[in-house]
Amino acid sequence: MTQRSAGPEILRLIELMARLPGLGPRSARRAALFLLKRKDQVLLPLADALREAGEKIERCQTCGNFDTVQPCAVCQAAGRDDTILCVVEDVPDLWALERGGAFRGRYHVLGGVLSAIDGIGPDDLNIAPLLSRVAAGGIREVILALNATVDGQTTAHYVADLLDSAGVEVTRLAHGVPVGGELDHLDDGTLAAALRSRRDVKR
Amino acid sequence: MTQRSAGPEILRLIELMARLPGLGPRSARRAALFLLKRKDQVLLPLADALREAGEKIERCQTCGNFDTVQPCAVCQAAGRDDTILCVVEDVPDLWALERGGAFRGRYHVLGGVLSAIDGIGPDDLNIAPLLSRVAAGGIREVILALNATVDGQTTAHYVADLLDSAGVEVTRLAHGVPVGGELDHLDDGTLAAALRSRRDVKR
Repeated sequence: MTQRSAGPEILRLIELMARLPGLGPRSARRAALFLLKRKDQVLLPLADALREAGEKIERCQTCGNFDTVQPCAVCQAAGRDDTILCVVEDVPDLWALERGGAFRGRYHVLGGVLSAIDGIGPDDLNIAPLLSRVAAGGIREVILALNATVDGQTTAHYVADLLDSAGVEVTRLAHGVPVGGELDHLDDGTLAAALRSRRDVKR
Repeated sequence: MTQRSAGPEILRLIELMARLPGLGPRSARRAALFLLKRKDQVLLPLADALREAGEKIERCQTCGNFDTVQPCAVCQAAGRDDTILCVVEDVPDLWALERGGAFRGRYHVLGGVLSAIDGIGPDDLNIAPLLSRVAAGGIREVILALNATVDGQTTAHYVADLLDSAGVEVTRLAHGVPVGGELDHLDDGTLAAALRSRRDVKR
C-alpha cells in the first residue's frame, strides 16, 4: 500500500493472519476486516483465546497430544486399555479417532511423517519416546494409524521395522471402501485393496 | 469430541477460528494446531496484534476507512484532490485502489452493498453521511467504484439517483478487457461492454 492507507497495526495483523494455513494474502485481508467489524463478538475473544491457549496448552510429555494438563486428559483417563497403543501422525488424527469413539486404548503422536522432500528425518519425529514407551513394557499391540499417503506408509514401515524386535504385535488400519462410499468414485488402489481383503459376508 | 481429548481452551480457539471467512471447521482445527506448534513465532504475536488492533483501530468518522487516527490517514493526507470523492463498497477496495496509486482524491466507504437476500437496506449502509458530505459542498465529482456485481450495480444506481439533484458529476468505473486479459477467457458481458466502449487507437 502506497502512502499510508492502512496503519501498521492493520498491516501487522494481516501479515500474521496470512501465515495461517489456508489463508493467502487476500483472504487474510478479508479475515482481518471481518475481525475489525466484529471487535466485541470475535476479535477480542479470539485475542483472549489465543493468549490463554498460548499460556496454558502444551504438548503432553507422554503421548504428544496438546492439553492444559500434564499428562493429557486422554493419557490420564481411567478405563482405557493400556496395552494397546495407537500411533498417529498428528493431533487432529487423534481428535478424529476420539470423535469416532471406536478406539479405547492410548495414543502416541509422532508429530509428522518422514519426508525426504521436506527434510524430515526420524530425529525430527516423536519416535524415540515411542520406542521407550514400548520398551518399558505393558504394551501388547501397536496400531500404526498413519495416513494412507506415500510418506505416511513409508513412516509406518520404518516404525514397524524399529518395533520388530520389541515383542509387540504391530498392526495397521484396514484399506477398503469407505462406509457410504461409491465404487465408481474410488481409485483403483483402494478397489484392489478392498478386493484383496474381502471377507465372508456372514462374518 | 467424546470424553475430553481436547481441552476447552483448544475447543474455544477452534470455534473462534472457524468463524473467520475462508476457514471451515477442519481448516480451523488445522490453523489452531499450526498456531499451537508456533507459540512464540505466530500464536502470541497474533494475540498481541489482535488486541492492539481491537484497542486502537476504529472507523474513520469521515470516510469509513479503518485506522488508528481520527480522521484516517487518507482523509488527513495533504496534496489529495478534495473535489473528487471515490465511493467504494468496503475497506479492501479502498486499499486496492491505494495500492494501484492511480487515484488521488478522497474516499467514502459504504460498508457493503444493498442486498435483498441478506436484508441489507440503505439504512444499513454509510449512505446518509455520503449525502451530507456532498451537500456540504466542495465536491465536484463522485466516482461510484462499486463491484461489477448485480448488488454492486444496484447500489450504484440507487446512490446515483440520490445524488441526482446534488449538482455533482456522478461517474462509474469503465468496463472492459482487464490489462493482460485474454479475450478467450472473458465472459460475454465484458466483451460486449469492451466493444461498446471501444476507442480510437490513436487516443
